[in-house]
Order: sequence, then structure tokens, then C-alpha cells
Amino acid sequence: MQTSKHFLDSFFNPSSIAVIGASKNPSLFTFNVFNNLVKLGYQGRLYPVNPGAGEIAGIRAYTSLRDIEDDVELVVSVVSAGKTLDIMKECVEKGVKGIVLVSGGFSEIGERGIKMQDEIARILKQNGIRAIGPNTLSPVNFHNKLVVSFFPVEKIRVGTVSFIFQSGMYDLRLSWLFENFHLGVSKIIDLGNKMDVNEVDALEYLSQDKDTKTIGIHLETIRGDSKKFVQLLKNTSRRKPTVVLKTGRTEAGANAAASHTGSIVKGSDVVFDIALKQAGVIRAQDLDEFFDFVKAFDFLDLPSGNRCIIGSVSGGEGVLATDLCQQEGFLIAKPSVATVNKIKAIFPPWEIPVNPLDIGVCFQFHDPAEPFVIFFEAMADDPDVDCLVVQLPQIRYLFADVSMFPVDEFCKPFLQAKDKGMTIVTWAVSANRPDDPLVAYLESHNIPVYPSASRAIKALGAVCRYRVINLT
Amino acid sequence: MQTSKHFLDSFFNPSSIAVIGASKNPSLFTFNVFNNLVKLGYQGRLYPVNPGAGEIAGIRAYTSLRDIEDDVELVVSVVSAGKTLDIMKECVEKGVKGIVLVSGGFSEIGERGIKMQDEIARILKQNGIRAIGPNTLSPVNFHNKLVVSFFPVEKIRVGTVSFIFQSGMYDLRLSWLFENFHLGVSKIIDLGNKMDVNEVDALEYLSQDKDTKTIGIHLETIRGDSKKFVQLLKNTSRRKPTVVLKTGRTEAGANAAASHTGSIVKGSDVVFDIALKQAGVIRAQDLDEFFDFVKAFDFLDLPSGNRCIIGSVSGGEGVLATDLCQQEGFLIAKPSVATVNKIKAIFPPWEIPVNPLDIGVCFQFHDPAEPFVIFFEAMADDPDVDCLVVQLPQIRYLFADVSMFPVDEFCKPFLQAKDKGMTIVTWAVSANRPDDPLVAYLESHNIPVYPSASRAIKALGAVCRYRVINLT
Repeated sequence: MQTSKHFLDSFFNPSSIAVIGASKNPSLFTFNVFNNLVKLGYQGRLYPVNPGAGEIAGIRAYTSLRDIEDDVELVVSVVSAGKTLDIMKECVEKGVKGIVLVSGGFSEIGERGIKMQDEIARILKQNGIRAIGPNTLSPVNFHNKLVVSFFPVEKIRVGTVSFIFQSGMYDLRLSWLFENFHLGVSKIIDLGNKMDVNEVDALEYLSQDKDTKTIGIHLETIRGDSKKFVQLLKNTSRRKPTVVLKTGRTEAGANAAASHTGSIVKGSDVVFDIALKQAGVIRAQDLDEFFDFVKAFDFLDLPSGNRCIIGSVSGGEGVLATDLCQQEGFLIAKPSVATVNKIKAIFPPWEIPVNPLDIGVCFQFHDPAEPFVIFFEAMADDPDVDCLVVQLPQIRYLFADVSMFPVDEFCKPFLQAKDKGMTIVTWAVSANRPDDPLVAYLESHNIPVYPSASRAIKALGAVCRYRVINLT
Repeated sequence: MQTSKHFLDSFFNPSSIAVIGASKNPSLFTFNVFNNLVKLGYQGRLYPVNPGAGEIAGIRAYTSLRDIEDDVELVVSVVSAGKTLDIMKECVEKGVKGIVLVSGGFSEIGERGIKMQDEIARILKQNGIRAIGPNTLSPVNFHNKLVVSFFPVEKIRVGTVSFIFQSGMYDLRLSWLFENFHLGVSKIIDLGNKMDVNEVDALEYLSQDKDTKTIGIHLETIRGDSKKFVQLLKNTSRRKPTVVLKTGRTEAGANAAASHTGSIVKGSDVVFDIALKQAGVIRAQDLDEFFDFVKAFDFLDLPSGNRCIIGSVSGGEGVLATDLCQQEGFLIAKPSVATVNKIKAIFPPWEIPVNPLDIGVCFQFHDPAEPFVIFFEAMADDPDVDCLVVQLPQIRYLFADVSMFPVDEFCKPFLQAKDKGMTIVTWAVSANRPDDPLVAYLESHNIPVYPSASRAIKALGAVCRYRVINLT
């Protein structure tokens, strides 16, 4: 495996971690940073460093880095900016490979902070030590249970999505990613002020990481070589679909970025936008799109084309979805005569089954599962159809006792159609309810459920654009 | 009250309702249509009509309309299309004022259905009976607990928003409106095929309805006099902000509308769009925007201007929000020197409090409520600030035991700033969790919480556009 040779492996797969400034007060963020590693069962040696703490989360605390008997591969420092320089000297002595600087108060605060940051950078460079941050929450690697977070992390879900952030914004969302998106994560890196490690390093690492299949990148600025970055994006995205959310686009946003991560935005947003398009990379406009698109790429195989069938529970939503599909560039498929004949069986005699199909009408005459069975069976065999865009029923309306809902039976035709090569996206009013067994089942089988037709269709649209750019 | 004289009052405030075709089988939609009225406690006389049913939901069923001793003001018919003509004749005999035709199978199915629908329309017109539908779920009036719905409705939330739909799509969302949007509803009308009652009648009624403050209109087509409708929209919207979601915009969508509600879309979408703009009416692009905008208009007073301050829990989200605010046409406010001095107290010495404000930084040094208290107190007194766009913390991260969260104390400064004339919108990762006490409290005090910065800012943007159009 190539990845093991990349210098970032000391950050994602260190044999030992020392957390300098870990607190023993459970109400402080600096407690959580250490405690999460203990609680989640990080698979390496752990050393809290805090003079006078005695013991933190059941583990002996050290007075200084020097007192640790064994070697230390990674240092996570949560001490304040002013104390950081001293810590750096200890790290040099100890021969650590990588340092994460969590605290802010550096280049983002102006001249004094820039000076301090430059001095630290100089010392580290001189001694061959690499650093993430300052002003960062990093790294996260679910495979070895390495989670640096300010908040108590209760559970993790290992998967194939990796993220690069230039902000700790993901930190608020760790559990939300699992609950509302059912996303499984491989690695997360927050670049912060990018004193040393920047977006080029991070993407290079993820492009080689065998556990990463899909990549999401949030950036406020490009700090590294922008030509190299765009070239790397292009090469990576062909193999691992990559979604980019770039903020600091407007003048006010760029100013805000400067005081957030001390980043000066180079070049106009228009230029960056064109570069992304030329690199074949999908750009998200906001956080909803960012996570929606990442989920679509992670869950779906590339569709065979853009001819889509819309099946809705409400006729009105079917009309709305049809507008959205046409606006996103889909072809509204014309099902074959054979398909129409098959699905006629579930519709009342007066309803002509055209695309969009109002599946909801059939509930009046059939058991709720039956129309979906017939719908998926018919569509899966139609050579003129590539994608199915389907509204899910609210099962709590169909079954007074939700636990009586035959989730396996209901979902089987979805999975069979998927196995036959149909690309399926769905939407449901209950998509955000992690307790909905239909949503949980479908998403655990990589059929995405979005909270509205609009979000489902835009996400599928992103996948189809990627397909056209990269495969034709 | 003028409203009592409008003919639609027989639909929203009838003294008696007969449901023809009500079933006694609880698993059928035609049971729910009747049972909801009984269960919710509709404030009028109720008659189920179904030969041989004996009793439905504990109420004596009648063999036919003729057998009902008393007069019947409103008939809701759930019998199939083929049987409808016979029912019409009974309605004429009985002297009912209004009829709701729930079943489909009329103009939306083509020539045969159009003929049947025309024949019914002729009989009704001859006898001065008005009708909603066919192909409708209507009406809903929460004030007298009149709810026509296919699904069991457990609870209602009376409020000041009224909706016009051309689809039963709202039916799936009744409880979702309360849970995910905390919206209180006054009246809902679904126009269906618009054989008789159309959007002009419905809007006329709501424009006069004293219980309606905000209006949401979903349309697939304009059936009535389009000039009159636009004029009415203009006059109504000045007093009662009105949000329009028009589907069937694209060619494929228009075709879909034709087979959904038998509607032929007249004129291009571009023409309609211009007419709406000229009428000063806000148009939503999809259902998320539709409900987001309606909530903003219902909850918020019009802002005094468009100078906004952004307060975020994550610095990265602050940068994103700043971009979005500038893109939506907001001015990124410059807080006064006095304001800056006040908020300096909560920030660490190295952080310069500019707009956007990274409130999250302060959590490391203060009790979580304190930064919000200082933030709102300072902003509320600043004459150079009109709107506050604020990210909420996830309280389950700040309080291990959520029940310990001091919701009153935390929210007090929000309410005080609101009372001083600040327009406040917020966003939170947990916005869709109806069990979050912070979200529930703020929304019950008309401070909207959206699930993302993007949705919060777009909704506030719609309110600001409305203000500029209508008040300058």
C-alpha cells in the first residue's frame, strides 16, 4: 500500500499520540479531545500531558512530553497560542513526526499572530516535523478510531467517504452525518490556517488512500500550488468522485475567511469555478448540496444514461419533480409498451400510466407494497429507462403500527431493480427521521433518501453531470 | 365579518356535513375522511352516508342523503366517478349549498371524463350549487376542526397561515408542518380539477378571512380570469404576504399537470413569472422554499432594513453565511464602536470581533448562554443593524443532560432583541428534530429555525425583497 509512505500517515495512523493540554474537567473541550480517543478505543498508545492532572480519563497524565518513556509519533496540542512555541521545542527534542495545533490565535488575528506562526513554521521545517493547523480540529480516522473532536462522540460509522475541511464545521455534524445522511466516513482532515499541511497534501493522501472512495472538500482559499491542486483534483476525481464547496466567494465572504483562518483569497471565484469545471469536479453551492452530492456519489453506481422515470405518492409532487428533472437536464423517459402493460395492472382503469407515475393513486386499490413491486419490476426490465426518481410513502400513515411494516418485502423490488442496473434516488417527508425503518433500510443498502424531490433530483443531476464529463 | 357572506363559507364553516361513501373499514382512506371529523371534534352536525354500514365511527350511517332528517349544508363525496352523477341529483333535491368531489377519474383522464365532468358542472350551475374538485382533498379549517384527509390526523395546530393547493400533496405533510416547521394553520383548500371553484374564488375568500395572515399558493395552472387573479394577488399580497409555487413550468411538467388535474397550462412560465414580479408576489422554486418562505412571512415582522450581522457557532459556517448574505443582496453590517466594545468582553483577547462573529470561539471561555446574552444585548441597541442571522449551538453537545439546559434563560436575549425591533432568523443542525427544546421554544416565539444557513438566509431574503417591493 502506497499510503503508508505518505507523511500524512503519521497523522492518520500514528502508533502513539500525546495530547498536550488535555484537561481533566469533563465540561471542557480540552477534556473531550482526549476522552474521545479513550472512549472510542483508539488503537495505539495514548499519553495525556498536563502537569498536576494526575490522571485523565483513567490514564496517567504526564508533566511534560519529556517524561514519556516511549517514543511519540503524533502530538495534538490544545494549549493556547502563547504557550505553543515552548511545546514546539519539546517536540523537537522528543523527535515527534507530526503535530496538530488545535488552538487559534495565529495568522488569523493579524501581524502579531503571523509572526508567531512563522516562527513555529521555521522551527518545524528546520527539524523535519510536519504540522496540521493551527486553528484546526484534526484528524479523524474511523478505521483506527482516531477522533479529535471538541464534543463527546458517542458512535462512529466506518465507510468510504473522506473529507477535507478548512474549518471545524464538520465537528458539529459528526453524529448528524450518520443519523441524517447515514454516511459512513473513512477520514477527515481540517486544515485550519494551513501553516504547513495544505489542500494539496491532503488531497494527495486521500487520492492514494485505499479506504477512500468519495471525497468532499471544503475550502476557504487555495494555499498550495493552485495549478498542481487543480491537476490533482482532475486526476483524483476521475477515480474518486470529488465534490468541492468553496466559500469566501464574495468580497464580504473573502474578508470573513481572512479573519477566520488567516487566509487571503487569491484570484477570483470565477476563475476557480472555470478551473473546477475544466477539472471535471462537481461544485456544491452550500452545505446541503455538499453533503447531498457526497452521499449520491458514495451510494450510487454511475447511471447508464439520463432517461428517468418519476414515481410519486402525490400527483402534485410528480408534476413538480418532472419540472425539476427537465430543468436538471434529464430526459423524461417514455416507458416501452411492455412496461406500460405491466404497470396498468395496478392502476385504476381510468388512469393512464404515463411518466410521471402517480403511484399514490394505487394505494386505494392495493396493499401498499404491491404498487411498488409492480413498478420496480416493470421498470427494471425496460431498456429505455436509466434512472428512477421515487417518492416514498410515509409508512406511519399506511401502518398504524409501524413495527408491522414489512420492510424487507417492501424494499426487495428496490434492491432487485438496483441489481439490474437501475440508478435509484428517492425522497420522503420522513427522510430526516432516523427512526423511520424504511429510510434506514434503503440507505443501508445504498439507495439514497432525500428530504425533498428537489434535493434528490439535484443530487442525481450532479452524478449525471459527472458521468458525462468523465466518461464520454 | 365580511367572510361569512362569501359562498366558500359553506365549505369552511358549514353547520352540517354529510360524507357520502364513508367506509366503516378503518384501513380505507374513505374511513379516515369521515373518522378524522369525528375524532378531531368537528363543530357541526355529521352524517355518514353508506347503505348497509349501520354505524361509522360511532355515528349512525344513512342509506342515502334523502334519509337525513335535517338540512345538509356541505356534502363531501368519496364515491367513484361513475356514481357521482346520481349523487348530484340527490344533492339538488336536498338543497345542499356546497359539494366536495374527492374522487378522480374526470377531466384528467381525457374525453370521457371531461364529458362526465361537464355534465356535473351543468347540473350544479343550474341549481346554484358550488363545488370543489373533483380530484381533491378539501377543505381544512382548523378553527372549527374540519379536516378532510385520507390519513389519520392526530393533532392540529391552529395558526394564521392558509394554503391553496392544486394537489393533495399537503395531505402527506399535515403533521410534518407542525413538527418540522411549527407552522400553525388556519385554512387549506385543494382545488383539484377546478371544475367550478378556482384559484380566484379561493384567494378572494382568504383575502377577506380575518384568521388568515399569510398565504401559500401552489398552482399547476390558472383556470380563472388570469388578469383578475394577478390583480387580486397584488392587492392581497400587500396586506397578507403571499408565496406562490407554480409547477408545470417546463414542457414535460405541463404535460404531467394535464394528466394530474386535467389542467391545460395557458401561456408561458416566463409571462407568469413577470406577472408575479409585477404583482409584488414572492415565488418559490420548490417545496422547501415554499414552506420556508411561508414560515418566514408568518413568523417575522418586516425588517427595518437589510443591514445584517451574522453570528455563527462555527467560523467556517460564518464565512459561508457571509457569502450567502451578500449573494442575497444583504449589506454586511458594520457594528458601531459601542457595539464592538460590548462584545469584546466575550471574545478572547486575540480575536477581533468583526462581522461575521464566531460566537463558537467564546464557548471555550464562558458558560454557553453568556456569549448569546452579550451578543443580542449589544446588537439590539445598535442603530446600524436591522437583521441578525444566527447559528444555534447543538445543546446536546453543551449539556450532557439536555433537560438541564436553561431554555428560558438562553432564549431571553433573543426575545428581547426581537422586541427591540431586530429581525432574527436562525439555523441549526438540529432544526428538524422536533424534540430539541431550543428549536421548539424559539419557534413558538416566532423566531424561525432553519436546517441550514442557506435556507435561513434565502427565507430572510424573500422577506426583504417583499419589503422593498411593497413598502418603498
